[in-house]
Amino acid sequence: MTFPVIGMVGGGQLARMTHEAGIPLGVRFRLLSDTPQDSAAQVVRDVVVGDYRDLETLRDFARGCDVITFDHEHVPTEHLRALEAEGIPVRPGAEALVHAQDKGVMREKLTSIGVPCPRHRIVADPADAARFAREGSADGTGGWPVVLKTVRGGYDGKGVWVVRSEEEAAEPFRAGVPVLAEEKVDFVRELAANVVRSPHGQAVAYPVVESIQVDGVCDTVIAPAPDLSPELSARAQEMALTVARELGVVGHLAVELFETRDGRILVNELAMRPHNSGHWTQDGAVTSQFANHLRAVLDLPLGDPRPRAPWTVMANVLGGDYPDMYQGYLHCMARDPRLKIHMYGKDVKPGRKVGHVTTYGDDLADVRERAAHAAAYLRGTITE
Amino acid sequence: MTFPVIGMVGGGQLARMTHEAGIPLGVRFRLLSDTPQDSAAQVVRDVVVGDYRDLETLRDFARGCDVITFDHEHVPTEHLRALEAEGIPVRPGAEALVHAQDKGVMREKLTSIGVPCPRHRIVADPADAARFAREGSADGTGGWPVVLKTVRGGYDGKGVWVVRSEEEAAEPFRAGVPVLAEEKVDFVRELAANVVRSPHGQAVAYPVVESIQVDGVCDTVIAPAPDLSPELSARAQEMALTVARELGVVGHLAVELFETRDGRILVNELAMRPHNSGHWTQDGAVTSQFANHLRAVLDLPLGDPRPRAPWTVMANVLGGDYPDMYQGYLHCMARDPRLKIHMYGKDVKPGRKVGHVTTYGDDLADVRERAAHAAAYLRGTITE
Repeated sequence: MTFPVIGMVGGGQLARMTHEAGIPLGVRFRLLSDTPQDSAAQVVRDVVVGDYRDLETLRDFARGCDVITFDHEHVPTEHLRALEAEGIPVRPGAEALVHAQDKGVMREKLTSIGVPCPRHRIVADPADAARFAREGSADGTGGWPVVLKTVRGGYDGKGVWVVRSEEEAAEPFRAGVPVLAEEKVDFVRELAANVVRSPHGQAVAYPVVESIQVDGVCDTVIAPAPDLSPELSARAQEMALTVARELGVVGHLAVELFETRDGRILVNELAMRPHNSGHWTQDGAVTSQFANHLRAVLDLPLGDPRPRAPWTVMANVLGGDYPDMYQGYLHCMARDPRLKIHMYGKDVKPGRKVGHVTTYGDDLADVRERAAHAAAYLRGTITE
Repeated sequence: MTFPVIGMVGGGQLARMTHEAGIPLGVRFRLLSDTPQDSAAQVVRDVVVGDYRDLETLRDFARGCDVITFDHEHVPTEHLRALEAEGIPVRPGAEALVHAQDKGVMREKLTSIGVPCPRHRIVADPADAARFAREGSADGTGGWPVVLKTVRGGYDGKGVWVVRSEEEAAEPFRAGVPVLAEEKVDFVRELAANVVRSPHGQAVAYPVVESIQVDGVCDTVIAPAPDLSPELSARAQEMALTVARELGVVGHLAVELFETRDGRILVNELAMRPHNSGHWTQDGAVTSQFANHLRAVLDLPLGDPRPRAPWTVMANVLGGDYPDMYQGYLHCMARDPRLKIHMYGKDVKPGRKVGHVTTYGDDLADVRERAAHAAAYLRGTITE
């Protein structure tokens, strides 16, 4: 048997779903998980419990793996470089992944390769943030509010502040991490362009999707993005393919985009792993983002990224007041026989992402209603 | 968390793929496996290694499970009855499962509920088998050859003999197991009607498929069966639903059928678990047989059984002379970006079922060619 061993660092739901996608491939899946109870650790045979911030733990884990990949981007860049220096294939590699770890590095690189981003620069202190706001006024995009982000460690609205004055700008600096200032983009909606690239350089682009955020957390993803012009769609896919190529990404790359009132698209964030905006592919595309991430990481030919239905909608399931989501299956499954529930095995806490649902069909309004209903019912915010 | 624990007895590929289908549901999956290396044991977290023929082992395994289901039908019927007597939900239950365990019981029951079967009776010895052959001559269906089957223990051509004389009829009696004689049906092809039924009595019927056997082993499944008249298709589905209801089946039921030259359909075999003739549903139906088996076993509403493409073809991958199937992925995945490979983690032995592939599309000839090519390439019988 020469089937490869894939080591995935991080025991979250992305690892759980990657393992699920790996079972048919017959590859061997090894997990480095913080605890034996993590989402992925519940369903994987070969689990190592350990701290991904510790290089020795990573080294031990990597021994016997043919390739290392990631559930999250929190592994210290210097550890990734150390593993690579020892000849361990790390995909995506440290040189690529740093752009998903450090927003300052990401903005600098994207700007240098001509990919449009919001106006931005690293700011030293609240007074400098105020200067950044004033600098923007001349071309009409500046002034308060300004978005401040710690360059490392943020996700789902954490590590991001929208500030309206020099006084409000004090908070982001308290962590002692460099702070990036960005214009507050006047966007009409958020899009995501998901692509997958292999070490060979083969790449596939999924249809561009619309991502609807509520309170800074992804709520709904519609595939493909409704009423998106073919030109803008092609431009977004080309942009994502360019980023993947120029940054040397291997695996799944999610490029989160703003569509502006004046018809431009700007890059908001990058993620170099399977991503919430790609969950719809599990039931809506010929090849899921998880299967294609694995194929890329293994340098296998990539699978067809095309959609299998005119419309597929994914809705995240957040924790509500009721700890028991299983009860809700009866109603949701009976109401929509096409509904797919994806739960992560996580304890329910209010506002915590504990799963998602997908459904699909020919009529977008109907598909959205079915997905939203199921997500709300499972959360407990509606009862019929 | 009130998510149920499903205990599955048997560590084969059906358990492996049922676990895969259970991950999104967030249910907990516990496996009773002969060895820690069995197909399913490689990918499941909670594995108990033990002998399913031992009642104490089964009892220990069942403790803490909310329901017990099966990868195979080899658990002794009396053990199933003992577990049920102790209040453990066993699905399908012993009263139903005995019909998939004992071909004599199955034929008697089907005949009593009016489901058409080949002419059959239990025969005592080779001379009685010869009498059975002669009995059939009068209505034109009899005479040699006759099919002899041990009532228990056969599968994939094992435990089945086609005999042409009283002398040849000696072999099947050597095992000391009762022997069932059946007419050798003059069939034009084999079909399978797959249905799923829940304890509630809800049932769904998948499209009737054509199953092509080579040397007594399933080689290819075409969904739906080409050129099957709507009447015959409906009759086959109704027959399978009737069997499921009358036998009290819970879970997936595969009804293997002969389509005769004179336009009848006769039941060949029953299986009360996910079945090779339903593997196409993983990539070709809205809800896979594995997901629906779990939903039935948990008494959840069943998922939509409809096909997602005009044609889906499944081809089994048998072991060939080369132990390394992974190498073949490069060619197969590059040739057909829609191809799905499902490998079972089994060592390659010539003729052993080690995986299957599915693919789909609008043009049946093209879809069949792609599936057959991939299966042959992985086996090593073709090299380009």
